[in-house]
Amino acid sequence: MLKLWTNAEFPPEPTRRFEAGVSSHELIRAQESSSLNLISAPPDARLLEAEIAFGQPDVEQLFESERLKWVHLTTAGYTKYDRDDLRESFRQRGIVMTNSSSVYAEPCAQHALAMILGFARQLILSYDEQRSDRAWSYVDIRRRSFLMGGQSVILYGYGAIARRLSELLAPLRVKLIGVRRHPRGDEFIPTVSLEDHVEWLKQADHVINILPASAQSHNFFDATMFQNLKPTAYFYNIGRGTTVDQMALIQALQESRIAGAYLDVTDPEPLPVDHPLWSAPNCFITPHTAGGYDAEMFGLVDHFLDNLRRFEQQEDLIDQII
Amino acid sequence: MLKLWTNAEFPPEPTRRFEAGVSSHELIRAQESSSLNLISAPPDARLLEAEIAFGQPDVEQLFESERLKWVHLTTAGYTKYDRDDLRESFRQRGIVMTNSSSVYAEPCAQHALAMILGFARQLILSYDEQRSDRAWSYVDIRRRSFLMGGQSVILYGYGAIARRLSELLAPLRVKLIGVRRHPRGDEFIPTVSLEDHVEWLKQADHVINILPASAQSHNFFDATMFQNLKPTAYFYNIGRGTTVDQMALIQALQESRIAGAYLDVTDPEPLPVDHPLWSAPNCFITPHTAGGYDAEMFGLVDHFLDNLRRFEQQEDLIDQII
Repeated sequence: MLKLWTNAEFPPEPTRRFEAGVSSHELIRAQESSSLNLISAPPDARLLEAEIAFGQPDVEQLFESERLKWVHLTTAGYTKYDRDDLRESFRQRGIVMTNSSSVYAEPCAQHALAMILGFARQLILSYDEQRSDRAWSYVDIRRRSFLMGGQSVILYGYGAIARRLSELLAPLRVKLIGVRRHPRGDEFIPTVSLEDHVEWLKQADHVINILPASAQSHNFFDATMFQNLKPTAYFYNIGRGTTVDQMALIQALQESRIAGAYLDVTDPEPLPVDHPLWSAPNCFITPHTAGGYDAEMFGLVDHFLDNLRRFEQQEDLIDQII
Repeated sequence: MLKLWTNAEFPPEPTRRFEAGVSSHELIRAQESSSLNLISAPPDARLLEAEIAFGQPDVEQLFESERLKWVHLTTAGYTKYDRDDLRESFRQRGIVMTNSSSVYAEPCAQHALAMILGFARQLILSYDEQRSDRAWSYVDIRRRSFLMGGQSVILYGYGAIARRLSELLAPLRVKLIGVRRHPRGDEFIPTVSLEDHVEWLKQADHVINILPASAQSHNFFDATMFQNLKPTAYFYNIGRGTTVDQMALIQALQESRIAGAYLDVTDPEPLPVDHPLWSAPNCFITPHTAGGYDAEMFGLVDHFLDNLRRFEQQEDLIDQII
């Protein structure tokens, strides 16, 4: 029997599944729990008793905990835990950290595919017409539509989402290029380094940003990057808002230097109602919903319980990040 | 050298490609040509001289033509040529007819996939919010989104579009069922007959109508059909508008007996601005653009020229319908 701390809060049914799945352990609930993954939870003294932490524990407390063996995050992003000192401390103490990226790869990949095809088939243009003059612009909208075959898609951020999106795009016969800090040669798609990516960026029809937030990725997509895009290129962000210089993106859209943008993440979130991104031309925004789906909470619980079984049997954990 | 009649009209560049491709033959242009594939062209006396007809020839003239060997249509649909007497006459005289379905299978399949994923990822809901209160309804929209894996997709109309759409849907791990008048057992997906389809329809999450217009398909999707759908099911039409009882569809949407509809075809077209389909709840319409793409006219020309080469070399033609 292990002491299992959580500050994750789920609706009744996933909660029942979670509680049944951990019933052989001692469950310690944080005094303040949160159903919103992206909000920082406060410190909780009970965390210090636990061997396993599930949810979004306070970072500073992770340094203090003496019994901790394993931390499982309920998010795919882990910016606040992405610290050299935390990694060092965990390694010294033999603590592992896992995240929920497996849970979010599938919806995020499907979301990105939906955005790409939304542009290709001009769904928003048709919807605008449906909501206005209903002009049945048959000839014009057909001419603005395009086929995906032969289009070049460049993926920034090499991980579970990029891999799954590559699988979904494969039957559309696109040209896929990945960008990775240090390509190793065993990637699932042709991959170039951060030294070589610009020549590929210049040829891309679709630029997919899946970068996590970090000091290195901050404003990675800046004015210079957008200047390298073709005027017919589309930009997508399903990574994090801070990786984009949003003013540079707005300017590129306003000056028609790129064809359009579809963003699932912004900086800040929620995006203020008067923010100019909302009304930039050909800029469409989904409110950080790329990873969401009806059974998402069951997905998070099942992923944790799978890892718990692996932890009990001393197998490798899925989505280990430390 | 063959006499090649056409009433198809293309923009300058595809026209140049067409003229270069047929330069070894005698080109006879109709007195009235049409760049709009879906409009009936008038009779043209010159058709009677031709051995090959490319475009949308007048049906009655096809019975009279004494030299004709091959008719190639610039559309995928061929309702006005779908007549037993024409088939009989062509067979007796050894005339073949081909259409352009290969050209349209790819964009139509991509369009259907875009519609399906548009619902799955709630892109229109997010766009409505972007254009209104910008409320960042993170929790609600995530909960309304769904994953495609395990969803049941039923395809009515067994042909090039259904085959290509099946390929695009495969990596999403959906359950595919085709419906065909007389399944032969060699279909590319599990296929049921018109006698057995209802039990599958009742389980379907996505009902995709790719039926062509014909006497048998008229109002095929009627009130009884919509009553068989699950309240969470989505209905799509990329076939022909006449195959749907539109008033029954509107009623099903108004009474929330289905979750939504995405239509690329309606009856009539253009759909009058005050038609109730435009404002039916969760009903989205693209103005017959599913088959369109920027290079569509090149696609039509290339497909014809490929068949012309086959005709010259007495090979089998692509997309033969008679």
